Amino acid sequence: MKLIMAVIQDKDSALLSDELVEANIRATKLSSSGGFLRSGNTTFMIGVEDDRVEEVLNIIKVNCESREQYTTSPVSLDVSLDSSIPYPMQVHVGGATVFVLPVESFHRF
Amino acid sequence: MKLIMAVIQDKDSALLSDELVEANIRATKLSSSGGFLRSGNTTFMIGVEDDRVEEVLNIIKVNCESREQYTTSPVSLDVSLDSSIPYPMQVHVGGATVFVLPVESFHRF
Amino acid sequence: MKLIMAVIQDKDSALLSDELVEANIRATKLSSSGGFLRSGNTTFMIGVEDDRVEEVLNIIKVNCESREQYTTSPVSLDVSLDSSIPYPMQVHVGGATVFVLPVESFHRF
Ligand code: NI
Ligand code: NI
Ligand code: NI
Repeated sequence: MKLIMAVIQDKDSALLSDELVEANIRATKLSSSGGFLRSGNTTFMIGVEDDRVEEVLNIIKVNCESREQYTTSPVSLDVSLDSSIPYPMQVHVGGATVFVLPVESFHRF
Repeated sequence: MKLIMAVIQDKDSALLSDELVEANIRATKLSSSGGFLRSGNTTFMIGVEDDRVEEVLNIIKVNCESREQYTTSPVSLDVSLDSSIPYPMQVHVGGATVFVLPVESFHRF
Repeated sequence: MKLIMAVIQDKDSALLSDELVEANIRATKLSSSGGFLRSGNTTFMIGVEDDRVEEVLNIIKVNCESREQYTTSPVSLDVSLDSSIPYPMQVHVGGATVFVLPVESFHRF
């Protein structure tokens, strides 16, 4: 048994939840903030058998991996003329910081 | 020293807190949601000496164990005649998912 | 790699965050309550290399250690005459409860 603590961005939380449910892996979400990732994160606490750790890590990687997105700047605060034309802006989204912890014993009551 | 992470239902949280205080065992509650148990759960983080782990597990079991309750359905959404008579409905309540983690060192400042 | 779980008082949270950032150590804050310390606490989850554990413990100690403060009682509920004179009152503030957990593996995606 291992306890996986995964800090991910809020925006990836719903998708990760769904994929873990699909894989029949149970997780608890802890409210968290700041630090490992930019503001707005969630910590997943996932208990799994040793032989499924790699599978869970892969589910986290596929759904939460840090990636770049192009976004169109929605508003321009610059008064110069040319800035009024929206242009694509590259932003980093996602990312996961994951700790796999040893478990001494596991109980369900 | 061990760190016990126990996910329990919100409705059992106050009772478990009281019983841990009575036993002179200190715990911190983390806001949590979803997953291991039906919606509305709390994660207790409990630090204890090795020789008290069994005692804490027992306190969790006694106060949070999954059990069945009979409830009277409060409203009937069915338009058929006989459904207007309230009848007892069996529901599962409680339950605990508990991880006992090894601790390398413990400090109080 | 170690995972440090530190329960501290809310009032020390901003300072600890700043000092960890200054030391280039990343942390995630979990919403927590009750138990190890008087009401209003925060749990810092801090991942560090083994050789920086002492440094992190020292940062926590310096910024969150339990200490006594003298405060002037703002209101007097006692109707006796002499109690209307504000007098300094000693209160305990701060404090940290810290668990250092072994980590089996660490991943960033
Ligand atoms: Ni899918
Ligand atoms: Ni009792
Ligand atoms: Ni400083």
